Amino acid sequence: MAPRRLVFNAFTMNAVAHVFQGMWAHPDSNQLDYCRIDVWVELARLLERARFDAVFFADVLGTHDAYGGSDDVAIRHALQIPSGDPAVLVPAMAHATSELGFAFTSSILSDHPFTFARRMSTLDHLSGGRVGWNVVTSALAGTARNYGLDGLPSHEQRYAWAEEYLEVVYRLWEDSWEDGAVLRDRARGVYADPARVHAIEHVGERYRVAGPHLAEPSPQRTPVLFQAGSSRAGRAFAARHAEAVFIHAFDPGGAARNIEDVRAQALAAGRRADDVLFIQAITFVLGSTEEEARRRDAELDQWVSDEGMAAHLSGIIGVDLSGVDLEAPIGEAERIDGVQGTLRALAENTSDRSLTFGELVKLQASTRVVGAPEQIADELERWAAAGVNGFNVSSVITPGTLEDFVEHAVPVLQERGLMQREYARGTLREKLFPGRGPRLRAPHPAATRPRAPALRGG
Amino acid sequence: MAPRRLVFNAFTMNAVAHVFQGMWAHPDSNQLDYCRIDVWVELARLLERARFDAVFFADVLGTHDAYGGSDDVAIRHALQIPSGDPAVLVPAMAHATSELGFAFTSSILSDHPFTFARRMSTLDHLSGGRVGWNVVTSALAGTARNYGLDGLPSHEQRYAWAEEYLEVVYRLWEDSWEDGAVLRDRARGVYADPARVHAIEHVGERYRVAGPHLAEPSPQRTPVLFQAGSSRAGRAFAARHAEAVFIHAFDPGGAARNIEDVRAQALAAGRRADDVLFIQAITFVLGSTEEEARRRDAELDQWVSDEGMAAHLSGIIGVDLSGVDLEAPIGEAERIDGVQGTLRALAENTSDRSLTFGELVKLQASTRVVGAPEQIADELERWAAAGVNGFNVSSVITPGTLEDFVEHAVPVLQERGLMQREYARGTLREKLFPGRGPRLRAPHPAATRPRAPALRGG
Repeated sequence: MAPRRLVFNAFTMNAVAHVFQGMWAHPDSNQLDYCRIDVWVELARLLERARFDAVFFADVLGTHDAYGGSDDVAIRHALQIPSGDPAVLVPAMAHATSELGFAFTSSILSDHPFTFARRMSTLDHLSGGRVGWNVVTSALAGTARNYGLDGLPSHEQRYAWAEEYLEVVYRLWEDSWEDGAVLRDRARGVYADPARVHAIEHVGERYRVAGPHLAEPSPQRTPVLFQAGSSRAGRAFAARHAEAVFIHAFDPGGAARNIEDVRAQALAAGRRADDVLFIQAITFVLGSTEEEARRRDAELDQWVSDEGMAAHLSGIIGVDLSGVDLEAPIGEAERIDGVQGTLRALAENTSDRSLTFGELVKLQASTRVVGAPEQIADELERWAAAGVNGFNVSSVITPGTLEDFVEHAVPVLQERGLMQREYARGTLREKLFPGRGPRLRAPHPAATRPRAPALRGG
Repeated sequence: MAPRRLVFNAFTMNAVAHVFQGMWAHPDSNQLDYCRIDVWVELARLLERARFDAVFFADVLGTHDAYGGSDDVAIRHALQIPSGDPAVLVPAMAHATSELGFAFTSSILSDHPFTFARRMSTLDHLSGGRVGWNVVTSALAGTARNYGLDGLPSHEQRYAWAEEYLEVVYRLWEDSWEDGAVLRDRARGVYADPARVHAIEHVGERYRVAGPHLAEPSPQRTPVLFQAGSSRAGRAFAARHAEAVFIHAFDPGGAARNIEDVRAQALAAGRRADDVLFIQAITFVLGSTEEEARRRDAELDQWVSDEGMAAHLSGIIGVDLSGVDLEAPIGEAERIDGVQGTLRALAENTSDRSLTFGELVKLQASTRVVGAPEQIADELERWAAAGVNGFNVSSVITPGTLEDFVEHAVPVLQERGLMQREYARGTLREKLFPGRGPRLRAPHPAATRPRAPALRGG
């Protein structure tokens, strides 16, 4: 039997610098053009020609200010600042394509769920059912300070908040407008049947939302749900809600352990083993031979800002790494005050204790595969054997290294059945989960919560 | 001296039905296709070919539920429900055009100012400086209930809230990144100078926002500011902040009184007489002769839903008009309980006391001009003589009556110098206020507030 094909998303950000700090200055990079809509439209066309599943936008809502106790380094290197709203890119990219999906990150801190639910429905309508949502609870302390909080609530508190947020948007997307509510009856002049459009009357800890939802049901109703949390609370949340979990293991063994944990929790929550896809962060550097690829990798590496990379990891883990000797092996770095616990968690994903701290920082940005196209394919098969269902592909240089991948690796991956040659029909959800229809179904909590009683008289 | 050319915006909504209830069912209407991005892209192209200044999107965040005490009638007639987010349409429409502006409504209730400021900066970047913001404080009680409030705060409270909201976004747009902060120095690998990027550390009644702004300065920094409030507090707010005030007088005399009032307040607030444009709501029905236009108008009128129109006005004024006899003259309708005060305010804009209530309702939707192209031009000259600077043009049928206007009226208006033949260079602000540059200047409060001290050490 042919292997199940793998999912490929382009992992990017509406910003100058996403995960590879310093690369924007490379002469072949077009990241300085991130404010040009035509550049995003061209990216969408390239990805659709290559049969990528989706473009996946990261986002942050604060600065990376742990490194050296300020965001000076972040601002100097354009480390995820400046950035732009990813959601508004979607309709322009959808207009230029017909099959590519669009997943973007949106934090529960940034938008009120009533506003967010309509925006997402709008995007699902405009794209013909091609959107996904990466549900995040924000990890940067600076984000909290932009939204009236003194600091980030604990993981547990943020995920309790996220549970209520999802309850609100699920009810707006799934329950407010019944199937059949929309009549579009021109002859009688009746657009919708008010008896089938319901208020939701949500009253919770953080939100009171009356409804009804202002948007009519979109092709998918609830967008495809992505989640990336690696904390205990985050994994439990993913097991309950996510359709695709974004993981970041350093090697296939680490991925297998992560997948086993989340899948066991998903099964315990009543979901099926194949209800959750696992998508690994990865980066490719290609050459026609391994030697050429390694030369290319070394050349690219000279553009990387070690300081920018360390500042990024500092921001993610909330620990000032400005005093760390990047040449020291991980074991030594563990002695640095305050860094131990966090590093232990990071190092869990690799068994290689001889890594230097600088190498760990780069691994943390994205697991990198360097080689000829056949070697890339071999490596992806190892990840697939570990249970990985697909990849979020970061480009070292946009669009250069992505174009290399499309031109040289995609044909080999398609030949081996690892990458699709044609899109399946239907919405993003139907493409990722063939045969299941456009909407979430039981036992997913969006589809199994008790239906709201008809709160409106009509 | 040639008359100052007038501003023309297409006034629409990402919805099935904006102001003319019932028209979606007309066989020539494409409003049922509001979820198709290509329809919006085509509209943008049409408007740019005709040299419209901008497309102006209305929006609401609740249902019109005053009529009969429920939103049944609104849902049945698609009266501004369903609707979609207008902001996400902008980049796709901007990609298909190079000069057309994009103004959209966003309420202070719907978005946190930190989130909103970045979204607006993103849109200003992606469009090359072509966006405007219609600042609203929401008028529907149902909107409040979707955002955790028991009901709408008073006009005064909402405008105090809006003052703080603007203070936050002005500081993010205008103060956070100094001119010259962005270096983009590839050779040195320095994107921006942290010493010139500032936190804002806003602490106010409703918001605490640390900053810095996540977006770098966009062409206009602050988008062109539109405002539409007609209450006393709304007019005072407009006089202080608005660059274009959207008015809705029933005749040129009513417009002149409205303009005189707001302009006097603007002068008292230290602004110049020509700092504020006044944009009147209008609708055209054309024919090659007046008789043909009147026949066309009568034909279109048969599609209008009187119930839908009355439900819309009910929602706007917050008064149940379901018991009102639409055939009765205004004088009689004033006897209806609870309706008097509101109607008196509406009727202030017209001296015609013989109007029926149904006619008043339709006037309230949009002032209508019916005639041959030369008659349209004559009428617009009368409005211009009253001090009106331009028009928000609602279409009875989209795109049909808009295409009629473009094909038959625009050439006549251009011939008389009332409508531009070519776009001026630059941003939307430069097109509307030639010679003043892309950014707000003193004495506008966005440009005259004391600069934030350098709160960051960097």
